[in-house]
Amino acid sequence: MNIILLSGGSGKRLWPLSNDIRSKQFIKIFKTESGDYESMVQRVYRQIKTVDKDATVTIATSKAQVSAIHNQLGEDVGVSVEPCRRDTFPAIALATSYLHDVMGVPSDESVVVCPVDPYVEDDYFEAIKRLGEQASKSEANLVLMGIEPTYPSEKYGYIIPSTQDDLSEVDSFKEKPDAKTAEEYIRKGALWNGGVFAYKLEYVLSKAHELIDFTDYQDLFDKYDTLEKISFDYAVVEKEPKIQVMRFSGEWKDLGTWNTLTEAMDQPTIGDVTLNDTCEGVNVVNELNVPVICMGLKDVVVSASPEGILVSDKEQSSYIKPYVDKIDQQVMFAEKSWGSFRVLDVEEESLTIKVTLNPGHGMYYHSHMRRDEIWNVISGTGIVMLDDKKREVGVGDIIEMKAGTRHTVTAVTELKMIEVQIGDEINVHDKTKYEKP
Amino acid sequence: MNIILLSGGSGKRLWPLSNDIRSKQFIKIFKTESGDYESMVQRVYRQIKTVDKDATVTIATSKAQVSAIHNQLGEDVGVSVEPCRRDTFPAIALATSYLHDVMGVPSDESVVVCPVDPYVEDDYFEAIKRLGEQASKSEANLVLMGIEPTYPSEKYGYIIPSTQDDLSEVDSFKEKPDAKTAEEYIRKGALWNGGVFAYKLEYVLSKAHELIDFTDYQDLFDKYDTLEKISFDYAVVEKEPKIQVMRFSGEWKDLGTWNTLTEAMDQPTIGDVTLNDTCEGVNVVNELNVPVICMGLKDVVVSASPEGILVSDKEQSSYIKPYVDKIDQQVMFAEKSWGSFRVLDVEEESLTIKVTLNPGHGMYYHSHMRRDEIWNVISGTGIVMLDDKKREVGVGDIIEMKAGTRHTVTAVTELKMIEVQIGDEINVHDKTKYEKP
Repeated sequence: MNIILLSGGSGKRLWPLSNDIRSKQFIKIFKTESGDYESMVQRVYRQIKTVDKDATVTIATSKAQVSAIHNQLGEDVGVSVEPCRRDTFPAIALATSYLHDVMGVPSDESVVVCPVDPYVEDDYFEAIKRLGEQASKSEANLVLMGIEPTYPSEKYGYIIPSTQDDLSEVDSFKEKPDAKTAEEYIRKGALWNGGVFAYKLEYVLSKAHELIDFTDYQDLFDKYDTLEKISFDYAVVEKEPKIQVMRFSGEWKDLGTWNTLTEAMDQPTIGDVTLNDTCEGVNVVNELNVPVICMGLKDVVVSASPEGILVSDKEQSSYIKPYVDKIDQQVMFAEKSWGSFRVLDVEEESLTIKVTLNPGHGMYYHSHMRRDEIWNVISGTGIVMLDDKKREVGVGDIIEMKAGTRHTVTAVTELKMIEVQIGDEINVHDKTKYEKP
Repeated sequence: MNIILLSGGSGKRLWPLSNDIRSKQFIKIFKTESGDYESMVQRVYRQIKTVDKDATVTIATSKAQVSAIHNQLGEDVGVSVEPCRRDTFPAIALATSYLHDVMGVPSDESVVVCPVDPYVEDDYFEAIKRLGEQASKSEANLVLMGIEPTYPSEKYGYIIPSTQDDLSEVDSFKEKPDAKTAEEYIRKGALWNGGVFAYKLEYVLSKAHELIDFTDYQDLFDKYDTLEKISFDYAVVEKEPKIQVMRFSGEWKDLGTWNTLTEAMDQPTIGDVTLNDTCEGVNVVNELNVPVICMGLKDVVVSASPEGILVSDKEQSSYIKPYVDKIDQQVMFAEKSWGSFRVLDVEEESLTIKVTLNPGHGMYYHSHMRRDEIWNVISGTGIVMLDDKKREVGVGDIIEMKAGTRHTVTAVTELKMIEVQIGDEINVHDKTKYEKP
């Protein structure tokens, strides 16, 4: 099975766990059998590999997420990086072209496109597998998954099938309706459109060539920023007469808001949390290393992270976005391909952060124009390079880098450092990268 | 006017703003006319000085609070330090003896004793002044303030006066009653006992000599730990026949819990806080430098500090103490006489803190056996002493102190440093103090 997972942008609706560079799909919030926590993307990837261990999984995403993806899924997963955001048609065209030209998937094989963040069980991926198989053998050019509605939702588009069979032609598509119209649709046997569909690789590739002038994946990648923003629905689905829909009746949740996310939590709290016995329907996710105490709350979600603190009535939590949009704050925590960093202290002319490097990983070789930096190694060992000279470092070592000094460090064992930045103009743009000698 | 302010112990009921070493009276929560915030003790001290700029104010407290008192009130305020906790009679005896022997207050002057944390207006201290004047000229040995009750509280003791005059003999004292009994008391004209009383200095001094064998203040201080724990009520008030009560009908609030404290807040929030328009009766005190967003809450108090986060229904917040007692966490923030510190990062074998020293102030000259320390100066200038050698330091300087190194620093201008502690046994007890050479 070839599967493209569409990994969307920043998830402000789950602030403070998600932020501009940490999307909701990377939050470790689901308890696994081993007692650890996994993220949406880890859960989905694990489920796909359980259903088909040979599945070719490609994640279509932006540059900003590449580090987090490899950090959470390892280096084996395919990543189709969109150089900039250009809506779903260019993204799917690019990922399909990547599968063909980079991963070597033959043109007659089928591909399934699926969002990266549904909360589902393994049966969902069994259904996805069948969707792919149907696309391989079907006369139809697109085979969609239609999810059996559990309530008249106003949040989803609806698919009206021609028959009530498991597999049917599509009669029509309906935009997000109001609740009353949704009820009517459901009476007529309509299904939710969860954005999952399968096609033969050559079909989308030929559509791409029809609409875009390009030779191969690399060429498409290079001219990506010149492409028109256009959705896959508009460019392809609406114009395609040969579409089938396959019914799925298993569990399916869209975890886009705190309200729905907390429904999927296996336990009411994560982290250092005390709920007194007068709390009802309270969920708390505490990523800080200090305690949270909740008393006498009802149907409230609390979340604390290095980015901030949310305390919200569960239903109200759906309306968070405009409030988060107004916050103008630097990113306080981020996962990187090489590890992670957390801001510890912000002053006018200094910034103190904690840097954790995974064994074998290093950061870019770089320098800053406008700030000095000091590394205080607090655990682990590594190799530092300063102005092309290498040096082993370990606990208690201090590394001073005046502005202009080219520097990098590679962790031998997991390496933790307190980095103190000093300067009158500290910002992320003051960075010059170099090749290592 | 001579006034002794009794400054009580740790205030877990206002966690996370108060902790073992930071009592509620030091939390800066009241907005002043200039727009800054002041603490209970600062507010009370300012109010006393407004009413009587020559008032001799002495704060009776434990050693742990001395730094915070001088930090908030300056060096001029008198402090009578209890070497250990011995209940109110020894504390008042010691403070009275301090007034006489250290501050030189004559024996025939009156003294007023008052808790440090009432939330009142200036008229309260006008009343206290009159209380002192009455004690000077009265035949009575004690003159109490009786607060006109506003509701049948179960939290206070009651004073039954003989008459309804502004000044009256006391008929009897009543312990904290249930609400029904309180209603009866109030019908009979009873007053709340707010723990405020005045006496001639010689009266309490002679009571002290009756019950304790000591020569002067220093002698009493030295043998303080041998004294019996006994309350002033039990030792003096209950046995004294000549007591008057003076009626006070102005505003008086006891800010012992979040519920009552939030009533006294001039604005619903302090710090970086967003309340959406569906919040009602919500108060937030955010001491962190990240935003708090509250949505759809009703009658809830939220407080976030370096110690932790409280989210509580206002009424439930009175029952916080047992939950805080269960928390076993190191102190994350403290004010000291020389400035303040805040814990930034805790690892198994390292601790990173931010130290802020006020100009002209320094810490003890000291060393550690089991840990190395590194200072990264991020702002200001100071004089460091390492193993008796002095050195000027400024922004960007790094000071390394291996275990055993005697060290201290004195701020010239406000000095901020990131201190990295490294060792396999980091704790506050590993400290040897030295005299500076």
